[in-house]
Amino acid sequence: MNRDIEQLQADLRRFAEERDWGQFHTPKNLAASLSIEAAEVLEHFQWLTDAQSHQLSDEKRREVGHEIADVLLYLLQLADKLNIDPLAAAREKLVINATKYPVEQAKGTSRKYTEL
Amino acid sequence: MNRDIEQLQADLRRFAEERDWGQFHTPKNLAASLSIEAAEVLEHFQWLTDAQSHQLSDEKRREVGHEIADVLLYLLQLADKLNIDPLAAAREKLVINATKYPVEQAKGTSRKYTEL
Amino acid sequence: MNRDIEQLQADLRRFAEERDWGQFHTPKNLAASLSIEAAEVLEHFQWLTDAQSHQLSDEKRREVGHEIADVLLYLLQLADKLNIDPLAAAREKLVINATKYPVEQAKGTSRKYTEL
Amino acid sequence: MNRDIEQLQADLRRFAEERDWGQFHTPKNLAASLSIEAAEVLEHFQWLTDAQSHQLSDEKRREVGHEIADVLLYLLQLADKLNIDPLAAAREKLVINATKYPVEQAKGTSRKYTEL
Repeated sequence: MNRDIEQLQADLRRFAEERDWGQFHTPKNLAASLSIEAAEVLEHFQWLTDAQSHQLSDEKRREVGHEIADVLLYLLQLADKLNIDPLAAAREKLVINATKYPVEQAKGTSRKYTEL
Repeated sequence: MNRDIEQLQADLRRFAEERDWGQFHTPKNLAASLSIEAAEVLEHFQWLTDAQSHQLSDEKRREVGHEIADVLLYLLQLADKLNIDPLAAAREKLVINATKYPVEQAKGTSRKYTEL
Repeated sequence: MNRDIEQLQADLRRFAEERDWGQFHTPKNLAASLSIEAAEVLEHFQWLTDAQSHQLSDEKRREVGHEIADVLLYLLQLADKLNIDPLAAAREKLVINATKYPVEQAKGTSRKYTEL
Repeated sequence: MNRDIEQLQADLRRFAEERDWGQFHTPKNLAASLSIEAAEVLEHFQWLTDAQSHQLSDEKRREVGHEIADVLLYLLQLADKLNIDPLAAAREKLVINATKYPVEQAKGTSRKYTEL
C-alpha cells in the first residue's frame, strides 16, 4: 500500500470520527457520493467543446481540481471501508484492459473502446 | 507528486498512445467516463440495504474493486491532462472541508453535511 | 405521441431557439446534462435513511420536484433530437422487462433485479 | 395529470407489486437507479464526437431509446412515490428557467447557461 494514500485514508477516518459521521458513511452511501461528485466534475465540461476542455482558465482548473479531489476523497473512503487497495486494483485492472484491448485490434478504434 | 501515481499515469499514457486513443481522451470525454464508471460502482449497491453493503461476498468485493479501479484510472488520466496533482488537491480539499465543517457544529449532523 | 409531451417539447425547442442554444444542445451534451441532473436528484437523498427518504418535508419535496423536472426537461429534449417517442419507448421497455423478470422467478428477489 | 403518464405509473405499480419489489423501491433507491440509468444513456455517447451523436445508426438509436425508457420509468416511479406530478413540475421549472435566463442576456452564451 502506498504511504501517501494510507496517510490520507487515516486523515479521512479521523475527520469522520471527530464529526461522528461514521453512521452516514456506509459503503452504499459512499458509492452514491462518488457518483454525485463525479457528476460535479462533468458539470464543468457540460457545455464546452472538446477543444475548450483542453484550455481551462486557471480559476476553472482550480475549481475542477477541487471536484476531482472530492471524487478521490470518497473513492479512498469507500476503498478503505471495503478493504480494497485502490492503486493495486488500478494496476490489476490496467493489465486486464491490456488483454481485453490488444494494440493491433484496438488501434484508433473508438468502437472497440466503446465496449470497455 | 507520489511515485506510484506518477508511474500509473505514465503507464496510462503509454497505453493510450499505443492504441492511438489520445484523440478520444479529451478532458471532456474523460470527465464523462469518470461519471459513467462511478455509476457502475453505485450499481453494485443499488438494491442493497446499508447493512448488506458492509458485507459483500468475496466475489462481489472483487467486482466492486474493478469498478473502483476504473474510476481511479479515469481520474488519474483526467488529472494528468489538466496538470493537476490529485493527492495534493485531495489534501488541500480536506483542509478546506475541515474549516467548512467545524467539529463542534458538524458533529453527528447529516444536515450540515448535506451541504458539503 | 402524447399531446402534453409534444407541447412541452415544442416549448423547449422555442426556449432554446430564442436563446440561440441549439449549438450547445447536441445529443451528446444533452445526455451529459441528463446524467448531471439525475445526480442532483440523488444528492437530496445522499445522507438520508430509506425511512427518511419516504418523509420529505414540503420544502424538500418541492426542491426534489424541481430536480426531477430538470431531468425530465433534458430527457424530452434528447428524445426530441433523436426522434424517439419517450412514452412509447417506456411502454415497450416495460413489456421487455416483464418477459425478463417473470413474476414467479423475480418475486421478492433483489438478486434477480440487480441484473436488470 | 396526464392520462398516459398515470396509466404508465399504474402499470409500474402493478409490476412492482406482482414481484414484491416495493421493499426495494424506496425514494432513495429509485433516485440512485435514475442516476445509474442516466449514466447508461451517456455511455452510448461517451466516445462519439458531437457530430456523430447526431447520426446514430438505427440499431444504436433503438438501444439509446431503451436506456431513455429506463430513465423515464424510474423517474415516473420516483415521482409517484413522492406524489409529484412530473409534467406539472417540468412546466413550472421551464417558467422559472425563462426568468432565470432572459433572452437578451442568455443569447448564445454558454457561460450564462453553465450556471443553470
